[in-house]
Amino acid sequence: MSDPRNTYTSLIAAIKEISLLASAGSVLHWDEETHMPPKGAEHRGDQVSLIARLTHEQFTSPKIGQMLAEIEQSDLVKDREGDVATNVRELRRTYDRATKLPASLVEEMSKTAVMAHHAWIDARKKSDYATFKPHLAKTLYLKHQEANCIDPHKPIYDVMLDEYEPAETTANLNRVFQSLREPLVDLVGKIASSSKKAPVQILEQKYPAAAQEALAIEASKQIGFDYDAGRLDISVHPFCTDLGPHDIRMTTRYDESYFGDAFFGVLHESGHALYEQGLPHEHWGTPLGSAISLGIHESQSRMWENLVGRSRAFWEFFYPKTQEVFAHQLADVTLEQWHFAINDVRPSFIRTESDEATYNLHILLRFEMEQAMLSGEVSVDDVPAAWNEKMKNYFGLTPPDDAKGCLQDVHWSHGSIGYFPTYTLGNLYAAQFFDQARKDVPDLERSFTRGNFKPLLDWLRDRIHRHGKRYTATELVKRVTGRKLSAEPLLDHLRRNARDLYDVS
Amino acid sequence: MSDPRNTYTSLIAAIKEISLLASAGSVLHWDEETHMPPKGAEHRGDQVSLIARLTHEQFTSPKIGQMLAEIEQSDLVKDREGDVATNVRELRRTYDRATKLPASLVEEMSKTAVMAHHAWIDARKKSDYATFKPHLAKTLYLKHQEANCIDPHKPIYDVMLDEYEPAETTANLNRVFQSLREPLVDLVGKIASSSKKAPVQILEQKYPAAAQEALAIEASKQIGFDYDAGRLDISVHPFCTDLGPHDIRMTTRYDESYFGDAFFGVLHESGHALYEQGLPHEHWGTPLGSAISLGIHESQSRMWENLVGRSRAFWEFFYPKTQEVFAHQLADVTLEQWHFAINDVRPSFIRTESDEATYNLHILLRFEMEQAMLSGEVSVDDVPAAWNEKMKNYFGLTPPDDAKGCLQDVHWSHGSIGYFPTYTLGNLYAAQFFDQARKDVPDLERSFTRGNFKPLLDWLRDRIHRHGKRYTATELVKRVTGRKLSAEPLLDHLRRNARDLYDVS
Repeated sequence: MSDPRNTYTSLIAAIKEISLLASAGSVLHWDEETHMPPKGAEHRGDQVSLIARLTHEQFTSPKIGQMLAEIEQSDLVKDREGDVATNVRELRRTYDRATKLPASLVEEMSKTAVMAHHAWIDARKKSDYATFKPHLAKTLYLKHQEANCIDPHKPIYDVMLDEYEPAETTANLNRVFQSLREPLVDLVGKIASSSKKAPVQILEQKYPAAAQEALAIEASKQIGFDYDAGRLDISVHPFCTDLGPHDIRMTTRYDESYFGDAFFGVLHESGHALYEQGLPHEHWGTPLGSAISLGIHESQSRMWENLVGRSRAFWEFFYPKTQEVFAHQLADVTLEQWHFAINDVRPSFIRTESDEATYNLHILLRFEMEQAMLSGEVSVDDVPAAWNEKMKNYFGLTPPDDAKGCLQDVHWSHGSIGYFPTYTLGNLYAAQFFDQARKDVPDLERSFTRGNFKPLLDWLRDRIHRHGKRYTATELVKRVTGRKLSAEPLLDHLRRNARDLYDVS
Repeated sequence: MSDPRNTYTSLIAAIKEISLLASAGSVLHWDEETHMPPKGAEHRGDQVSLIARLTHEQFTSPKIGQMLAEIEQSDLVKDREGDVATNVRELRRTYDRATKLPASLVEEMSKTAVMAHHAWIDARKKSDYATFKPHLAKTLYLKHQEANCIDPHKPIYDVMLDEYEPAETTANLNRVFQSLREPLVDLVGKIASSSKKAPVQILEQKYPAAAQEALAIEASKQIGFDYDAGRLDISVHPFCTDLGPHDIRMTTRYDESYFGDAFFGVLHESGHALYEQGLPHEHWGTPLGSAISLGIHESQSRMWENLVGRSRAFWEFFYPKTQEVFAHQLADVTLEQWHFAINDVRPSFIRTESDEATYNLHILLRFEMEQAMLSGEVSVDDVPAAWNEKMKNYFGLTPPDDAKGCLQDVHWSHGSIGYFPTYTLGNLYAAQFFDQARKDVPDLERSFTRGNFKPLLDWLRDRIHRHGKRYTATELVKRVTGRKLSAEPLLDHLRRNARDLYDVS
């Protein structure tokens, strides 16, 4: 038998090469979204499929399984939080997920997703749920098949979650989300009834795209994004992608009649990017050099977007610059008015347009719908009615049609079920981490008022970024904050804002 | 034995997949030159190497050789100009070149090129030939090894040529180039002595980059470049690359103190791009869907850049637009002055800055130097002296230092020997093709004056583009123009300009 150390070295070399090839696929995807001419789409699809096939073939080869098994039986994995154990644990998880699905099922899922996505585009345009319904039914059916292949003994929604939020459980999410729901519905209701209204028309003036871009770049530089190791471009759907350890690309879009989208969008993507730029580069391409989960990734983007980017302290530093750039638009606008405008809270139909507080109610609704659809408690026939009932309960609103209701999101058409909760997980983690950072770093927010974000970034790099996937999200939050995930820090934060801005107690 | 038709189908599928993967590598290269942040370079190098290794492994696999042999012995290749024979002939040529070189030699060549390139950068900066000399000697030594592996019975320069200009011979080039040299030296000398001087200061005003770009895009659209199937971006070294059958990317660079570079550069790259956009897309990734040679590619770029783009007819249409865009700069400039300025001819040291006429003398010099270096007639010690002597003979100039002499070009440092002649071949083919188009298409140049370039583009697509590699360059020129390659059409064109602009007869 060979030395397991050599086997581990070979395994890591193989995995890094697979990641290297996959990262070429990421370049193709980035170009597709940002620069590719329209007629290039078909060939690009072929290129992307080929690279996906090659990486899948290499990763699922029996040789990888044999190497994993050999190392798992050795002393190398004794230290559960050691480098080897971390990489092997996570590679085993993804290897099993990748090899347990028969090729025929993968193909059917992929075909169904293409058909469902086309049907969804059509259904949303016409606001006709019936067009999408059979595809949703097929998707749910295949999700049961998938879960059955991966682990028939686990609750199905746990298997769904495991793809996006490894080691997270439905039970734990229900615990935290339930403790968030009622107080949040209550808070949002009170804000809606407050006589104070945010002066949002400030944000609805003409803001030329070039000036918005320059300001967003300045802000992202100020918080620490390294433009020698990344870029900002334009795409229809904003995203952040890692093309290599020193090449992190963000995108945004500019709406010239609204200030908020691009600026806070760039802060959001910068949060993702700072996480990527802070991962240990020597482990790039392996679990140790990768982000923990979508929820932890989102905690980084939400922290910079909301807890930093919408804070009074941030704007004490940044508002004078903003006023200089938009001298005409903001001549008579005070810092107080600006700060209130960017922290507007109001119930609305569309998740992607919603504010920091109500956003989470949109997610709770989807999380509950997904569980109910998978268990059969809500049949595909009843999805619109169940959706609308929850909208009424949480927001006091009834969608005028299904396009503004259960058809608004792309996720289910892609077969992504179990993805939505990671958004609110991100908000919860962000608030709990930020709360801890405030305790650990003296004068954290005072440093923001001087444009100094390094203390926070250093704290994030030390406590979160440099560990890659060494800890699960659950372990990390316990390690960093001394307690398990709780809804309180987020509720505290939202209540503080409600009190300061809306006079809501 | 299997049906050779099935074997051919399998071969083409394998080749198309290799080309598909290689085209992902082209996206990586395009991004590297146009958008990649500086710190991304190292990882990008790893990505590019991996894709090059994978495509090389796939293309040189014995299976490809077996399929080729099987089809070569069948009736499928009977028709020498048929689809199968064309693809098999060209795949055999590249397969043999790729498999005949031992891996150790390929590795040594690649390492030597990296070292030589670094040494060249340093040598050129210091204008110190001694720094580059040992690397040039090593490169020449390896070129002998390479030629010996590929075909020890062929003249070495023929083997070099075959990489860039398949089926071309040194003897044929010497024939044509010799008939060009003396008349051209004579013509350039007469122009230099003419009392008429082109008003080049017109081009040396401030031309803002954004306006240059808009004008260049308008011109490239006008001649037929499809921006739904391509793009124009900025890079340090302009190029054109095929990322897929409907995705052709061009680049240029803008010098705000000189009009010529970007505008004629974009016309040049558009010429390459129109060839790529005109190749038969159903054969993409195979020889039938590929350009014949560098020389034929260059004939397309040179035709649009020089024979069309610097013609009086083109500017009768385009000068009013240009004058509108640069109203201030061109207020007092007549069409005649403009046309003379953009057709300036004058001896100079640097090839890349030289004009349409003297450019070819730079190439003849390098072509002769390369043959002399490979035969040993000029030793590496004598390169600067031999270079300078030729400069004196052809241009009447002596370079002030080697940076402006034998160290000016990057090509030898990359190990590219046999590449230079394709530039002048391009000019010769361009003139001979254009001469023929004038005969075949009634009122060709009158259509230019109305902004109609479709008759020329249609002619090029029918006579040249749609055939891919079906004919060799030598066969094509005979087929299209009825005679073999001659220096006369190019000399006629240059003499006409000299007569009209410089009063030189």
